[in-house]
Amino acid sequence: MADFIEPRTLKGFRDYPPELMIPREALLEKARRVYRSYGFAPIDTPALEYAEILLGKGGEESDRLVYRFRDHGDRDVALRFDLTVPFARFAAQHIGKLGTPFKRYHMGPVWRGENTAQGRYREFWQCDFDTIGTTSNASDIETALVIHDLMVALGFERFEVRLNNRLLLNGVLEELCATGKSAACLRALDKLGKLTADEVCGEMVREAAVTEHQARRILDIAAMRGTNDDILQRVRRDYGGNAKVAEGTARLTELLDVARVVGIPEGRLRLDLSIARGLDYYTGTVYETFLLDRTNFGSVCSGGRYDNLASLYTKQLLPGVGASLGLDRLLAAMEDMGLLPKVATPAPVLVVQFVAERLGDYQRVARLLRAEGVGAEVYPEAKKVGQQLKYAEGRGFRAALIAGPDEFANGTWKVKDLAKREETTVPQSEVVTAVRSIVDRQ
Amino acid sequence: MADFIEPRTLKGFRDYPPELMIPREALLEKARRVYRSYGFAPIDTPALEYAEILLGKGGEESDRLVYRFRDHGDRDVALRFDLTVPFARFAAQHIGKLGTPFKRYHMGPVWRGENTAQGRYREFWQCDFDTIGTTSNASDIETALVIHDLMVALGFERFEVRLNNRLLLNGVLEELCATGKSAACLRALDKLGKLTADEVCGEMVREAAVTEHQARRILDIAAMRGTNDDILQRVRRDYGGNAKVAEGTARLTELLDVARVVGIPEGRLRLDLSIARGLDYYTGTVYETFLLDRTNFGSVCSGGRYDNLASLYTKQLLPGVGASLGLDRLLAAMEDMGLLPKVATPAPVLVVQFVAERLGDYQRVARLLRAEGVGAEVYPEAKKVGQQLKYAEGRGFRAALIAGPDEFANGTWKVKDLAKREETTVPQSEVVTAVRSIVDRQ
Repeated sequence: MADFIEPRTLKGFRDYPPELMIPREALLEKARRVYRSYGFAPIDTPALEYAEILLGKGGEESDRLVYRFRDHGDRDVALRFDLTVPFARFAAQHIGKLGTPFKRYHMGPVWRGENTAQGRYREFWQCDFDTIGTTSNASDIETALVIHDLMVALGFERFEVRLNNRLLLNGVLEELCATGKSAACLRALDKLGKLTADEVCGEMVREAAVTEHQARRILDIAAMRGTNDDILQRVRRDYGGNAKVAEGTARLTELLDVARVVGIPEGRLRLDLSIARGLDYYTGTVYETFLLDRTNFGSVCSGGRYDNLASLYTKQLLPGVGASLGLDRLLAAMEDMGLLPKVATPAPVLVVQFVAERLGDYQRVARLLRAEGVGAEVYPEAKKVGQQLKYAEGRGFRAALIAGPDEFANGTWKVKDLAKREETTVPQSEVVTAVRSIVDRQ
Repeated sequence: MADFIEPRTLKGFRDYPPELMIPREALLEKARRVYRSYGFAPIDTPALEYAEILLGKGGEESDRLVYRFRDHGDRDVALRFDLTVPFARFAAQHIGKLGTPFKRYHMGPVWRGENTAQGRYREFWQCDFDTIGTTSNASDIETALVIHDLMVALGFERFEVRLNNRLLLNGVLEELCATGKSAACLRALDKLGKLTADEVCGEMVREAAVTEHQARRILDIAAMRGTNDDILQRVRRDYGGNAKVAEGTARLTELLDVARVVGIPEGRLRLDLSIARGLDYYTGTVYETFLLDRTNFGSVCSGGRYDNLASLYTKQLLPGVGASLGLDRLLAAMEDMGLLPKVATPAPVLVVQFVAERLGDYQRVARLLRAEGVGAEVYPEAKKVGQQLKYAEGRGFRAALIAGPDEFANGTWKVKDLAKREETTVPQSEVVTAVRSIVDRQ
């Protein structure tokens, strides 16, 4: 008797069976189509890199999260923990050949040995797009359009891309308190939503050494509500003399103008001066995206403009702007909203194998359907029809095709609508039409 | 002055810039479409697994090739080195829930720390499909059809799927020499092509302890040429009394019959009794696929039937059949055949930014094209038109759209064919048609 090895995955890792993988592939495919339609080109980088590349020369404190080991050549290597650092290395290494502006998207798994609470996994996919090598606001604007089109392509209507500009925030902070306190203030501000306004106020006083009065003024700005025009007008009126505020508002104004010209529905892009994005490297426009029916899932697509992507690896300045689609959050939200059909087959039609000797005919009708873009599986064994139909229903097939001796004698096929449990008999020439009327129905 | 970290990849690893990644994505997408059209469902498994799962309990001799280390929880873990072993573990773990038959495809990177000579990389993609849980010949037949359709979908016409059946070979070996010598004989036979017939003969005598006369007879069988019918007839005549030969020829005959009924062109599927597939676990039909204009690249899609997938992890018998598309070989062959256009943009149209204030109009026309399925990039800066067109040509854009003050005054666009260097001026309403006539041209 064999002594079996227990089949199991590592803690924090999971398999993707078809029910999870079919939606993930659909989502990636839709995102890919949008990225490409804007001219973003795909790249890939290795999963394994020199640890020094990923962690920087002194990055020991990150080690806890990073899968790091010695390879066969005794190199100090690690698995990538995001797609940004590899992209920075990639850009520094190849930008001379790639040229600028350079627009890329990158989809792939990353690994972090972190705590696995709350549905966090140690392996998860990221899905980033960036434009580097230009400071032009045209790219900031395009980033907002891409995010918008992504959400529409994924099937959402009730969503909101929330916009801000770190220049605007920094300018306001300059006016309200001493310079040099911005970073700490923004880090505190970024916690709005997780913490109460009072708590954020307290953190600003503690961490950024501003007065409580100053902190309250900052929070007032962040809490500003109204139309985009209202907000821009009030900021210009109160702080427009500040050069940073002037530039930040000018860039946001142009963004909203272009969005109007190209026909983005009102309300989809909304200024929100509380959006700070805690990451220190954002320096201009920042983006967050919320599903209005599931704001509790947090931002599902976030990003911003940065001054320099690859300062660790090259002296060449590479300013850029980009965002990252939160694949797992989106899938979780879509599942919660009932938007993910429980389907375990990518082909909607099952061709029943009724008479084993007729396998050629079953495969031939399946090929007819495939040629028309309708996936069709032929059941591999000539089991009882009832068993085959049970299999079809369990996997989420939409239609079944059945032909036994009678049908072959008459040149007909039975077409079964598996959801409605209705069956019609049609001549061979009408099979494709009959199947289409079932599988194209929502 | 900063002390930069040298941007580089590990030995044996490489980046995929757009010129490499665009064809890889296109290839994966086409393969995915074919797999799905037959009802194969996507799955994914973690890159990292328990080393014991991947290597078996005593698999120390494989270690050299495998990236293996201790994780933060001091677990003995490794990066997957193929997609078959993780699939076996996956199947053993989930088959109760998945049910049989189960058809899956799996595309993803695998890692092997092997020698990097001859364009071999330490990270490369595999692209497998399998049907498990049935011994039915219908699945063997379908596997051949899938391979055929894959090659057609990838744009090949001159290719050949070479077929054999290990039962047939084993039966012949039973007749020619003692049983129990099959495995060593087949391993030697698999080297035909790399070694001369004489060398293979020598190896059989040495490794399988057969006589030279026996080895020569085996090689005669393997060298048999002629139509599929000729070969089947001769094998049946000479060895048809052997039960294994009878079953092997029956299964191959049915396969070829079905292929004829469904309309696979003659010559695409060819019996070749020298195909042995060295792997010991193949037990039935075996497949190899050759590009007739690049046979030197070896088989680009190979596989076979096996008796039991997951014997390491479960007592449940999981027979199956499947194959693996050699992504990197195919890409290398396609490059060699000049089938990979040197294009660094997934969008065929560049919209020139002539007047910065008209960005909204440029993005609007780009959206018109995108809505029609034509990718369009808006250049992010209002640089000189000549510079923008140079960028467009360098990246492989097909068409450029240009509008300055005159065009805006007249409601027209200049449409430039970048390959032909021809330019026409059309009204806004005809832009999509004019662009299509350029980008749809081969």
